[in-house]
Amino acid sequence: MESERRPRLSPSMADLRRAVRELLPADGLVLVGLSGGADSLALAAATAFEAPRAGLRAGAVIVNHGLQAESSEVAATAASQARELGLDPVLVLPVTVAPGGEGEGPEAAARTARYAAFDRALAQTGARHLLLGHTLDDQAETVLLGLARGSGPTSLWGMAPRNGAYLRPLLGIRRRQTRQACFDAGLVPWDDPHNADPRFRRVRVRETVLPTLERELGPGVAESLSRTAEQLREDAEALDALVLELTPEICEPAEAGIAISVAALSANPPALRQRIIRFVAESEFGVSLERVHTLAVARLVTDWHGQEALDLPGVRVVRQHGWLILSRPGHAQSKGPSRPHGTSRH
Amino acid sequence: MESERRPRLSPSMADLRRAVRELLPADGLVLVGLSGGADSLALAAATAFEAPRAGLRAGAVIVNHGLQAESSEVAATAASQARELGLDPVLVLPVTVAPGGEGEGPEAAARTARYAAFDRALAQTGARHLLLGHTLDDQAETVLLGLARGSGPTSLWGMAPRNGAYLRPLLGIRRRQTRQACFDAGLVPWDDPHNADPRFRRVRVRETVLPTLERELGPGVAESLSRTAEQLREDAEALDALVLELTPEICEPAEAGIAISVAALSANPPALRQRIIRFVAESEFGVSLERVHTLAVARLVTDWHGQEALDLPGVRVVRQHGWLILSRPGHAQSKGPSRPHGTSRH
Repeated sequence: MESERRPRLSPSMADLRRAVRELLPADGLVLVGLSGGADSLALAAATAFEAPRAGLRAGAVIVNHGLQAESSEVAATAASQARELGLDPVLVLPVTVAPGGEGEGPEAAARTARYAAFDRALAQTGARHLLLGHTLDDQAETVLLGLARGSGPTSLWGMAPRNGAYLRPLLGIRRRQTRQACFDAGLVPWDDPHNADPRFRRVRVRETVLPTLERELGPGVAESLSRTAEQLREDAEALDALVLELTPEICEPAEAGIAISVAALSANPPALRQRIIRFVAESEFGVSLERVHTLAVARLVTDWHGQEALDLPGVRVVRQHGWLILSRPGHAQSKGPSRPHGTSRH
Repeated sequence: MESERRPRLSPSMADLRRAVRELLPADGLVLVGLSGGADSLALAAATAFEAPRAGLRAGAVIVNHGLQAESSEVAATAASQARELGLDPVLVLPVTVAPGGEGEGPEAAARTARYAAFDRALAQTGARHLLLGHTLDDQAETVLLGLARGSGPTSLWGMAPRNGAYLRPLLGIRRRQTRQACFDAGLVPWDDPHNADPRFRRVRVRETVLPTLERELGPGVAESLSRTAEQLREDAEALDALVLELTPEICEPAEAGIAISVAALSANPPALRQRIIRFVAESEFGVSLERVHTLAVARLVTDWHGQEALDLPGVRVVRQHGWLILSRPGHAQSKGPSRPHGTSRH
């Protein structure tokens, strides 16, 4: 079938296959999330090649967002490409996207609907993994978008290569390689007009921000962003693991809340101190403290001069007798002396 | 003197003074590194105000790079501004900048000469601290420049508020505030023509890259970059402290080098594993391993299938009997069984 159009060796497809091979699970069925665009189409082709060689079955899920006039046709074409590649089963799942306004609204709504459909597909087919076609370029864009959100290092993590059922084997592959791989394989990808719509922030990052960075700072910015994201994720995982290990040792149940040892907080470096405070507030009260808040709490440890209780959103923090006592705001408490004791952790 | 030009209260100057106050040392003499530009001039004014109130003496160092026709005149003007502000002593230090070519050359050469002069000034005057006028904008630019270098998270740390003798109190202050503070105080800053020369990468970041990011991603990008740098530095410091603590416990002297316990490396998360490997190579052999190298070494731990010795730049790594043995390349070694023993750590 079309063997004349297929060259002997495609270096781009070889790179994709290697990337897929490194991330394939040990057995069972894997699905490819297929939009019909170059990234996921090339991923589908590489997976169709690698999966049987690794003793796996591979299928595809095509989500029909119904957002554009030709959505159904695009989905049908992608489904037939998937079948020709030998993928089986091939599911086409129509979804309803809540109508959004300008800006990020519709993009986020479509993503939510898409991942819900992916989860349905995993449940329906019994597959344990779904491969996604996000590339190094997508990763760099995600990091830059995170930078703009400005919520600190977490916003720079980008996407994980493994996240539960989702695998992203192409995070080290450039977008131009997926195009080349499609071309080499005689596969005609679909060009989503949304990918050129400057209403979307991600499109502006792709079309304007990254090219400006590469022009003014030199090439390699996308690779650098992606490499940085990987290392930041590693660092954060190590610190989070430490916090999980440390926290139970330095906390005690307290009246209406929980107490953290001031001495222990003081002995730890700021990065761990901040994280312990944030982790305790989150796990005890379901409160997500911002950095400005954890810094204020930390000053009760590092810059103690008899401050009053701190009333933060969803949690009250007071230092007493060598403990930071965290409790729900509004709970009758303090002024008078109180001391953590071993009861009623709620 | 000129009291009519001076308004009662300058919010910008108040912010600067507060920032300086928070970072001033306890006693002695501090110097301000003064170029005559708005940032360092406003810093000089804020320091001249705050230092005596904190029981300190404050002087200024002006470095005359001699790079432009008017350099001497600029230095003389800055010196007289410093004296009028009440700073004492005021040193003007001429330096010779090695002539550089296009691009980063001359900028880096000027920086090296400048810091050498600052160190001389500290030694001459017996001051223990020198304040630098780097602002939040400079910090954001530094982070973006680091991103382009792509050497991972370390490249994103930006500048430290405290680094040995150097203090940078204005890292939370916007450049426009230093201009406003000068204006409010009736101080006329010098505009360095180099600050508009697009040959310099930093100028391109300031004039093109950051404005593009702010336009396409929304305002607050500079603040976000600066906040991110602060947290990344914190995280790195915590991890580095752990590595310092851990490493001696898991290393043994080995023939012609040092051995790291494979079990210990394996038990630690990747962020610590990478750092331990990098730290040992650095401290034992003065070798600065790149991430691609530490990843290769880590695979001897996490993906062991009897690999050969790894010959990296400046260090050879081989796994034997549950140890990673690091030695100088070229040293007669291995193939035959060898085992770490307690001698001759060099």
